[in-house]
Amino acid sequence: MIQKRITVFAPATISNLGSGFDVLGIAIDRPGDMVTAYRQRAPGLSFSVRTNHANVPAEPQQNVAAHVANLMLEEFQPPFGIRMVLHKKMPIGSGLGSSAASSVASVVAVNGLLEKRLKKSDLLRFAVEGERMASGAPHADNVAPSLLGGACLIRSYSPLDVISLPLRNSVVWVVVHPRIVVRTEEARRVLPAHVPLESAIRQWGNVSGLTVGLSSGDARLIGKCVEDVIVEPLRAHLIPGFFTMKQSALDAGATGCSISGSGPSLFAVAASMAIGRRIAAAMADACSHAARVPCDVYISKVNTRGATILRKG
Amino acid sequence: MIQKRITVFAPATISNLGSGFDVLGIAIDRPGDMVTAYRQRAPGLSFSVRTNHANVPAEPQQNVAAHVANLMLEEFQPPFGIRMVLHKKMPIGSGLGSSAASSVASVVAVNGLLEKRLKKSDLLRFAVEGERMASGAPHADNVAPSLLGGACLIRSYSPLDVISLPLRNSVVWVVVHPRIVVRTEEARRVLPAHVPLESAIRQWGNVSGLTVGLSSGDARLIGKCVEDVIVEPLRAHLIPGFFTMKQSALDAGATGCSISGSGPSLFAVAASMAIGRRIAAAMADACSHAARVPCDVYISKVNTRGATILRKG
Repeated sequence: MIQKRITVFAPATISNLGSGFDVLGIAIDRPGDMVTAYRQRAPGLSFSVRTNHANVPAEPQQNVAAHVANLMLEEFQPPFGIRMVLHKKMPIGSGLGSSAASSVASVVAVNGLLEKRLKKSDLLRFAVEGERMASGAPHADNVAPSLLGGACLIRSYSPLDVISLPLRNSVVWVVVHPRIVVRTEEARRVLPAHVPLESAIRQWGNVSGLTVGLSSGDARLIGKCVEDVIVEPLRAHLIPGFFTMKQSALDAGATGCSISGSGPSLFAVAASMAIGRRIAAAMADACSHAARVPCDVYISKVNTRGATILRKG
Repeated sequence: MIQKRITVFAPATISNLGSGFDVLGIAIDRPGDMVTAYRQRAPGLSFSVRTNHANVPAEPQQNVAAHVANLMLEEFQPPFGIRMVLHKKMPIGSGLGSSAASSVASVVAVNGLLEKRLKKSDLLRFAVEGERMASGAPHADNVAPSLLGGACLIRSYSPLDVISLPLRNSVVWVVVHPRIVVRTEEARRVLPAHVPLESAIRQWGNVSGLTVGLSSGDARLIGKCVEDVIVEPLRAHLIPGFFTMKQSALDAGATGCSISGSGPSLFAVAASMAIGRRIAAAMADACSHAARVPCDVYISKVNTRGATILRKG
């Protein structure tokens, strides 16, 4: 059946998960970005943005959603053009995969309008081009889980090798987004070229344990394995009140806590929804007192569906 | 029931598994060390060694099996002494956890003679003291799998945190031991204090994938994830003919191949016993031609039982 109009939601993601820097990511239920796309007679892309956030580029040359849509149109040369509206709900620089959600929503929407549709996993290579535009590197640790859902391992970037991790979806993830911006480029600038071998060994021990914890749904194991001895110590100072918020999460029952993506959002691990709500309240309180900024709070299990088509016709 | 005599077998182990340097290890069926221990009236330990190998210390002050037995006797002060015979079947410096097998066989044997026996996992802290004696560091990546069987993750050394990994035991492990000695201390001397962050990230991506592969019994995934971009390149030159042997394994159908422990043994990953046998023949052939040394070959699935009591009475 030919689709003339489609609306897609692509979820936010927690990448890195502490120890799994640059290789692990999970999708969560909220927030997320939305794209509505229509077939139009005129060839090419007509692009517009609706948002309440500042700094969202409306120029198609500067927006990742338009960029990846154009790449797909160039490759597949459909006998129609596309009018696309990006409902940019996520703020930029949140550490929750904002650019990834836009790119993913866009590629899934364009794909839904094509005559011959690609599998979701084949859309990944277009979505990572949005990341290349946004941060200079084709990172997949946000786009893969936003697209595919669940927990994703980016085992290798050359060649790109993405593995959906076995998941027992019992653990609750708490995300607190302090309303400041940490730009990915800045957060990457604090990274050293070399790290102590001893720290690297501890980190890959944690990554293995985290992989086991995700598959068994063991909140205690996940919590201790999100420990990040390499990147968190270097990025914590970019987030005002980080240590206070982290301690408040642990005091409220979190089994672990670290930075989501490149920040400023934090995530915490909870064994149940009730504990998750307690952690969220404590972290939000710490954010307003220690960081003196308002924050957004999200609580969910892993979103196993990834990007979804909300409406079509 | 009071045991007066006990014979224990502790298996060899493949530690590191390539990417899982210092944190992962599996037990295999053969080779292994054996300890027979008897209660005796005289207090303390009477120790002797039976072996065909050179360089096995017979002095109890220098032998790991005697050392860990003495530690247990000191702590538990049983109302009897122990006469122990170590049947040292594994050569020293093989990369197959030779000292670990001796230590583990010893602690399991002593434990079997005690009135109040400890759980296997509680014996780990004694066995690692044998590793401290042998190599200067209390490594657990050989003793844990030799003791407990299966695949073990040493998530942390401080505090010691050992996790038995979920395992689907379908993959076949081929081990070739060229009859030369690589001493652990020497193999550790080539390690740098710092490693490129980029390599470390690739390594922990592989470790995560390896953890998934072990749990799903996926030979292809395990094979590609044993890729070690940090340690293997530095240690390969300590093993004459390493690259020829590795290539012969891959040509014969191995999905992956790397150094076992600190070498000189190599391990290769096979999807079936038939392929494993073909790989073993090819590697042994390469060893005699490229390294010009004889070798021992072992083929098995993961040994899930670990140290076992062969006889008691």
